[in-house]
Amino acid sequence: MRKLQDTIDRIEKVDSSWDKKTQKKLDNLTKPKGSLGILEELAKQVVRITENETPQLNNKVIFTMAGDHGVAKEGVSAFPQEVTTQMVYNFLAGGAGINVLAKHVGAKVVVADLGVACDLKEQANLIIKKVNYGTKNMSRTAAMTREEAIKSLENGIEIFEEKHCSDKSRSSCIDIAGMGDMGIANTTASSAISVVITGADITSMTGRGTGIDDSKLKLKKEIIKRAIDANKPFADDAIDVLAKVGGFEIGGLAGMILAACSRRVPVVVDGFISSAAALIAYKLEPKTKDYMISAHASVERGHKTVLDYLGLKPLLDFNLRLGEGTGAVLAMGIVDAAVKILTEMSTFNSAGVSKENVKA
Amino acid sequence: MRKLQDTIDRIEKVDSSWDKKTQKKLDNLTKPKGSLGILEELAKQVVRITENETPQLNNKVIFTMAGDHGVAKEGVSAFPQEVTTQMVYNFLAGGAGINVLAKHVGAKVVVADLGVACDLKEQANLIIKKVNYGTKNMSRTAAMTREEAIKSLENGIEIFEEKHCSDKSRSSCIDIAGMGDMGIANTTASSAISVVITGADITSMTGRGTGIDDSKLKLKKEIIKRAIDANKPFADDAIDVLAKVGGFEIGGLAGMILAACSRRVPVVVDGFISSAAALIAYKLEPKTKDYMISAHASVERGHKTVLDYLGLKPLLDFNLRLGEGTGAVLAMGIVDAAVKILTEMSTFNSAGVSKENVKA
Repeated sequence: MRKLQDTIDRIEKVDSSWDKKTQKKLDNLTKPKGSLGILEELAKQVVRITENETPQLNNKVIFTMAGDHGVAKEGVSAFPQEVTTQMVYNFLAGGAGINVLAKHVGAKVVVADLGVACDLKEQANLIIKKVNYGTKNMSRTAAMTREEAIKSLENGIEIFEEKHCSDKSRSSCIDIAGMGDMGIANTTASSAISVVITGADITSMTGRGTGIDDSKLKLKKEIIKRAIDANKPFADDAIDVLAKVGGFEIGGLAGMILAACSRRVPVVVDGFISSAAALIAYKLEPKTKDYMISAHASVERGHKTVLDYLGLKPLLDFNLRLGEGTGAVLAMGIVDAAVKILTEMSTFNSAGVSKENVKA
Repeated sequence: MRKLQDTIDRIEKVDSSWDKKTQKKLDNLTKPKGSLGILEELAKQVVRITENETPQLNNKVIFTMAGDHGVAKEGVSAFPQEVTTQMVYNFLAGGAGINVLAKHVGAKVVVADLGVACDLKEQANLIIKKVNYGTKNMSRTAAMTREEAIKSLENGIEIFEEKHCSDKSRSSCIDIAGMGDMGIANTTASSAISVVITGADITSMTGRGTGIDDSKLKLKKEIIKRAIDANKPFADDAIDVLAKVGGFEIGGLAGMILAACSRRVPVVVDGFISSAAALIAYKLEPKTKDYMISAHASVERGHKTVLDYLGLKPLLDFNLRLGEGTGAVLAMGIVDAAVKILTEMSTFNSAGVSKENVKA
């Protein structure tokens, strides 16, 4: 709990007074004022977060965290539980969607086991910070103990901290972090978290996940109702929500957000599961919101409501619903482009271009 | 006219029977079916266009074409006309928005003068295919002669052809082409073209361009009305529309689309001006539509109507209104990512991942 509280205490409020200076710089670049729209907003946000007028996003890292869910045995997913493990190996072998897209944008993928249901083979590029062998079936009992919930958050913090500025070189410091998830049945946990925290109804917050049919969707909603009724999570206590209806990878991702914010590193939030983790982080410390960039509008039902609650607008809208951080890495590429606009474009003066006729 | 007709005649209908095979391949990759949404659609489109099951988009080229507009002297832009020339030099020096973003996604920028109002200094990376020294003031007379309109289209074709497969190596062949524009007052021409071709009213099709105020916007609409009334362009004759209310860079871009389609190269359409060029290309040969990818939803009023007319959905929505091809290069990066999903991801079999439980 000490690590968690220390990390939260280190998170500073973002200072919006940086914006004026950044906008002035943007307005001196060879383009009509404001004509790069959201790219300009992103550049301002990165300056605000990093408190660096000329940020560089060279070291992009996507944290893909995995965990299993006891509730999977209720048949709420289209895939069997062993797929969590199989996909972790796929990430490590470099063959998954996240690997392809991360390579495309020049991001590193950090794969971590927060609670997969079996012992994974140790290997150099896998971080094992297992809290337990999958959560318990939340439709019958709490998914995890309060201690385990805290442990998952602190493990997420540790994973970020161990990768951030891992040696004394500037280049080992993470410039922008992305979030990704893997865990069969984790949309069920994410829906439950989102229902409890946002207050939205179960139907509006429950989608088809990996692609379940109508009868499974009906069952999934019943299971979520049963989980909430049985556990009565307390919305204002994020650790209670995480413990009762969450998941280890969701806790890990929430912890990673807290750690990134405490180090003034922008965090790109992937889709529905990552946004549920963002809800946990936000409830623990609302200042985290200003460090978050929503990558994309997921197909998963309820995602928009979660983003509205957080006050975030998604950058991309590609009908994605894969998770793993696939939307987040694509968005990281766009954020990088936005920052380069700020740092690499010529000014009207340096390029000898006439400015617009400005009226008083 | 011969070159134009030959190019149009070479454009083949895209064969959608490729989609089934591509979707089957996508469905064997380690992800839930359809979970990469629009990325999967883009991958299918590129296969359809290129008729290559394993396309690679290594050679990305953005064609940024410049031209001046006689109508600028009516005061329809926030910037003075000399900015067209100044910005061309800025492109050549590598300091403009398009240069920064093209470098970010690994695209080359080809800068071409289709009709800037002065003689530009010759230099290695500038293509001079000037039709004339700016168009005439379309609010009083036709912007150009019919011969000039054809010449601008054919110059655009030549520009593409000279860059495409410029030597015998495969790597010199353009894998994906993007469109960008530069020309003070060219939103005025683009609005006029779009009004005539789509049949929409002037108010709904006229925006603030580089950022004009209310009184200039009112004037701009009056000028567009005057141009259409004076010239009476015939909507079903795209060359007539281009001649009467168009621009040389718009004709060049329309020609470049035709050339790219004739060589089965996907074309990424930038914002409002590029979309007006796409309207011209589409009216000359409707088959071109299937080769087009709309990069983004521009802030410029009327863009959505133009895209609806073309049946295109914009990929990004970043409130951009810079032109130059800035939205197009960002979109090219996404299309590249989509194609890599198809060609670089592991299959369920190769990765040893279980498939979903499929019902009959």
